[in-house]
Order: sequence, then structure tokens, then C-alpha cells
Amino acid sequence: MPIEGLSLNLATVRQQWTLDKAVDACLAQGITAIAPWRDQVAKIGLDEAARIVRANGLQVTGLCRGGMFPAADPSGRAAAIDDNKRAIDEAAAVGADCLVLVVGGLPEGSRDIAAARDMVADGIAAILPHARANNMPLAIEPLHPMYAADRACVNTLKQALDVCDQLGEGVGVAIDVYHVWWDPELMAQIARAGAAGRILAHHVCDWLVPTRDLLLDRGMMGDGIIDLKGIRAAIEAAGYHGAQEVEIFSAENWWKRPGEDVLATCIERFRSVC
Amino acid sequence: MPIEGLSLNLATVRQQWTLDKAVDACLAQGITAIAPWRDQVAKIGLDEAARIVRANGLQVTGLCRGGMFPAADPSGRAAAIDDNKRAIDEAAAVGADCLVLVVGGLPEGSRDIAAARDMVADGIAAILPHARANNMPLAIEPLHPMYAADRACVNTLKQALDVCDQLGEGVGVAIDVYHVWWDPELMAQIARAGAAGRILAHHVCDWLVPTRDLLLDRGMMGDGIIDLKGIRAAIEAAGYHGAQEVEIFSAENWWKRPGEDVLATCIERFRSVC
Repeated sequence: MPIEGLSLNLATVRQQWTLDKAVDACLAQGITAIAPWRDQVAKIGLDEAARIVRANGLQVTGLCRGGMFPAADPSGRAAAIDDNKRAIDEAAAVGADCLVLVVGGLPEGSRDIAAARDMVADGIAAILPHARANNMPLAIEPLHPMYAADRACVNTLKQALDVCDQLGEGVGVAIDVYHVWWDPELMAQIARAGAAGRILAHHVCDWLVPTRDLLLDRGMMGDGIIDLKGIRAAIEAAGYHGAQEVEIFSAENWWKRPGEDVLATCIERFRSVC
Repeated sequence: MPIEGLSLNLATVRQQWTLDKAVDACLAQGITAIAPWRDQVAKIGLDEAARIVRANGLQVTGLCRGGMFPAADPSGRAAAIDDNKRAIDEAAAVGADCLVLVVGGLPEGSRDIAAARDMVADGIAAILPHARANNMPLAIEPLHPMYAADRACVNTLKQALDVCDQLGEGVGVAIDVYHVWWDPELMAQIARAGAAGRILAHHVCDWLVPTRDLLLDRGMMGDGIIDLKGIRAAIEAAGYHGAQEVEIFSAENWWKRPGEDVLATCIERFRSVC
């Protein structure tokens, strides 16, 4: 029996399996939706990844990731735009529901976050025609403010939605609870996103107390302090009923466990706490 | 010659010196404003700390810290209120310009950040009459969202100012660049804070890339990516011309250096990059 409403972001098992092996393991436990990363696709080849998706009737809830638009010089920004167009092509080839954008932080040597944010909006605008032509929605993922300098200078749902409003059709948001749970305006902005039809993905994991690493210490759902059911209720009330995509970067815990155990725990927690 | 406009938060040299020794070292280099922590005051005794302040004509730009209002039960919240009233008394005794509030995070076992935020507003309201009676302004310090779970559920300047508006006179904000530099609404909220006469303190340090620890890896001004001069210009344009208070928690770097070198570097950077 397929498990309705659960997708596995393959970063969760990136230390255990390649894409093909991860898919076999997912199917064995009833998970029929995945979200791969581009390096995972590249490792087995785009054609083979697309074949695996089609042959197994998988849903691909997103391809991770485009973005990284800011750069210190115009040639760097142009290179980012080219790379993002390739990412759109890859997302289309694997039949992804959206291309997730981690927009990038400050260019090397810069302290001007407002300028970086302008570069992000300009970059998305530059790739949007190609995305529209390929019917590939672009999902801006606001990242936690602790990543503002080096990974993403879009840090709140409000900010991401303002960019969407500026750019029009074909762009929306990926709401990852890890990044947005703390935001005093979260519930209002989820409602706004839903009303505008902008919710393209819902990622889940948990915030651990204490958190021992800024990047690689995310928790399994239920092991932290995020109100997962409350946020999910708001997202559903806003009209989004797509999958919850489990994405856990966990260098010292989940990446060290047998992949089958990780999947089984994801399923159990998805049913009990999400 | 005293150095105008620079205050040293004594957390910056807490591994090197007790309060009395830190004051001697500050005066030797021309720093005549400090901000001690309550444990540093307690270690030498409140009376002795107050005597040192008076005898040397020091400015005390703030006492760190009150706050930590949320608790799982009413007795815990009542205990926090009592402790905050003592903190007000101590701040008054050392002649502090304000009592800095780190408001607290989620109570043990809670996932309800909205409830924690209500407890914060209720807690500040409960101590405000005592603060007003002692002419001790309360400075709500919004902390970076990475501390929302365990240290402070007030995470943006906007949110802090909304609490101020709700509570009226006698409460304002401490603007620490480390916590707010990423905020897309920072400049607008600084202007709002200034217009309302709510800016009580300005703390500086820097955000390092990479940041290796969530709590104890703050950088010296100039070593990171914060636009210190830009934020200072906005704060001055908003009408605040008080000291910049250097507060650096740095377990692996500045806390391990000779205190005199730390002070000399603070002064040099204050003059060159702040």
C-alpha cells in the first residue's frame, strides 16, 4: 500500500544510498514520492533517473536545487543563470513538481545584503521565462536567518512572497518548517501564500534543543520543538494538500543509521506527529 | 583621554577578568563605559560593584540581564517575575542606563511559541511598575531566530516594538547587530524605534562566515559580514547617539587571548569599522 502524503527528500539518506538504491528502499516500504538533489541525479545520470521515476510511477515533489544567484561580478551572475536554466531542464526531465530555489547569500567580500537580495530577484526574473516555457514552477525556499550570509538571503515567508508578487506567475514558495517555525508572522504568511496559490512544497523535520551544528543537526519529526501539526493545519487551511517532504540533514545521527531504519522512522513519525 | 561612544560589555572578557579587574583594564585604555552581567556583579558583591562604578565615574550602558519569563507552571513564572524585580534593583544600584531583557524561549516540553510570547508580554507587564518606580528602563533585546527555542522567543525588532507599543512607557529595545542584521525590515524598524524613543542600547560584534557554534562563535567587529557602519548610520538617523557596546562571546578565540589585547582590538575596530 502506498503511503499517501509522504515524500522522502533523498538528502535524508544521502550517506546511505545512491538515488536508485534509495528508490528501491522507498518502494519496499510504500514511499512513492521522492525529492532528489541534482548531484544525486547526476551520479546515476539524468536519463537513468528519469527512467527510474517513470518506470515506478514515482511522484517527484521537487528537484533540489537551483538558486545561488548573487555573485561578485556580472559573469558570476550570468553563470548562475545558465546553471539554473539547466536545473529547470533537469527538473522537467525527471517530472518534478517544482524546482526548489536556495537563493544564495552574500557575494564574496560583500556586506550588502540588500544588494544580494536584488540580485536574487533579478536572477529569478531572468530564468522565469525558461521555467514557464517548461511548465516548471520555481519554489523559493526561505531559509532560516542563520543562513543569510552564506546560503540564502531570503529568510522569511513574507520576503519570499514579496518576490513572488513582484514576478508574477510561475513562482511560489517551499515552506520548510525548520526555516520558518520561529517566525511571528508565519500563520498570516501561510494564509497569504495559500490565497495566492503560491504553496508549492511543504518540507518537514524538527528543531532540536540543543542544536549542535548550524547545518547538519536537524532532527527527526517529533524529536524537537516544532509544532508540526499546527503548521500543517495552517497549510491545509490555506488550501495546500500536497505531500509532506521529509528532509533531514543529520551528520551525527540519521546519516549514520541503516537507511531502512531511517525510512521506517520517517513513516512512523509522519503518521504520529505530522 | 576617554574614548567617546564605546562601551565594553564585560561578557567580552568574562574568561579573563572579574568585574573589578576588567574595570581597571578598561580605564587603563580609556574605556569609561561598561555593561556587566549579573553573575559578574554578584561575584564581587553588589555594593562593591556600585562603589567601583561611582568611584570611577563609569557609565553603565546596561545590566545584563533580566528576562527568561516563560515557564511551564505559574509558580515558575512568578519566580521569574521576582527575579526580574531583583534585577531591576541591581540595575538601579549600579546606576545602569537600562536593564537588558533576554526574554526566554519555550517552557520545558512546550511547542507553543505563541503562548511563550504571551508569557513574555505578561511578565514584562508584571515588572514594569517596579521598573518605572525605580526609573529603570527595560530594554527588550530581540535575539536571533536561532535562539527562539531556548533563549528568546522575541526574534525581530518589529516584534519587540509591538510589545513596547502594547506596554507603554518605560520599555524599549536593545539593538544588537548580531541578532538583527539579516532582517529585511531592519532599517524600517530602526526608524520606527527611534521615532518612538525606544532605542535604549546598541550592541556590536560581527557575524563570522562560517559560524562554528550557535552561541559562542561571535566575531570581532570587522571580521565578519555585518554592515556595521550602515546600521549605525540608521540608528543615529533615528535619533540615538548613545554608546556602541561591544559584546563578543567567543570561546575559541577572544576569550582565550590576553584581555589587554582584546580591549586594544575592540578600540581599534571601534574606530575603524563601527
